[in-house]
Amino acid sequence: MAHTNTMPMGPWKITVYDQRHFQGRRMEFTACCQNIMECGFENIRSLKVECGAWVGYEHSSFNGQQFILEKGDYPCFESYMGSNSYRIERMISFRPICCANHKDSRMTVYENENMSGRQFELCDDYPSLQGMGWMHNEVGSMHVQCGAFVCYQFPGYRGYQYIMECDCHNGEYKCYRDYGTHSQTPQIQSIRRIQH
Amino acid sequence: MAHTNTMPMGPWKITVYDQRHFQGRRMEFTACCQNIMECGFENIRSLKVECGAWVGYEHSSFNGQQFILEKGDYPCFESYMGSNSYRIERMISFRPICCANHKDSRMTVYENENMSGRQFELCDDYPSLQGMGWMHNEVGSMHVQCGAFVCYQFPGYRGYQYIMECDCHNGEYKCYRDYGTHSQTPQIQSIRRIQH
Repeated sequence: MAHTNTMPMGPWKITVYDQRHFQGRRMEFTACCQNIMECGFENIRSLKVECGAWVGYEHSSFNGQQFILEKGDYPCFESYMGSNSYRIERMISFRPICCANHKDSRMTVYENENMSGRQFELCDDYPSLQGMGWMHNEVGSMHVQCGAFVCYQFPGYRGYQYIMECDCHNGEYKCYRDYGTHSQTPQIQSIRRIQH
Repeated sequence: MAHTNTMPMGPWKITVYDQRHFQGRRMEFTACCQNIMECGFENIRSLKVECGAWVGYEHSSFNGQQFILEKGDYPCFESYMGSNSYRIERMISFRPICCANHKDSRMTVYENENMSGRQFELCDDYPSLQGMGWMHNEVGSMHVQCGAFVCYQFPGYRGYQYIMECDCHNGEYKCYRDYGTHSQTPQIQSIRRIQH
């Protein structure tokens, strides 16, 4: 059963299941889903990304914790989640990331809010920002010029995830509260490009 | 207090603490530690990697779950762990990764055990093996020719981690049981280089 919503016609496809290990009810999507409960699901407990890069959200209407979903099999909650002390076990909305896979992904991180203080331009994957010379474990603001990135709270792509896109907020994230509806700290220690 | 053990004199430094958030007893290391309990610690609850790339282990003598530790601050268990259903809350041994940062990191993944079946050569970071054309969610065996890599159970650098090095096992990992003392499945869906 294919369910198409508003938004792009691009090469995106995700199949979601209401039970772990690709069991139970299933549904295919090629565009965003604002509330899986409106499709009669209580929750999403496993999924397969077949095409494109997607973001999953803890709550409806793209709210709460975010998690990047790239091509592959996600048989259980642990496979979507980051390693957070606040352990989420729900995914209620999701959407494709339309500006992923930009050849020239490029963003600038700034020490302070409102794009001020020391800055560094990123165009690669950085499992440790401090390893590439960033002075501490926080980022005050950022600007995505091209493409899309995932920022993570801890080194090695761990902890809370924040999806940053050039075509959301005009690519401008002026303070840590802009990073996501769940962001409680400017702590960012690893960043990578989203490609598919 | 600096504690130096067997092994390299390279540019490695890690500071471990017996309480969360860099509190309590602290100790610095520039080489491997086989059992932190022999230093009077009950456990490691936070740490800072100041130089080099390291692997942490759940048990003494480099056994149990593995986790890559790159430059940065790890204030709590959640910051070292991957996103596993089996949640570990201990780190008892650790060691530097001596062959990390090799300019020409290179490995081959194979479909079946004993380096047989279809194969693919990797020399970059792959958040989704299926995204780069690998046919399923498993890797039967692998050979690291140069440098060091982290392999992950799920896409996007999630789930169990396996550190693979050209100078361990001669770089040969002939079946999934060679991936780590805790490996229970050949499931591998993302792989990246270790650099510092």
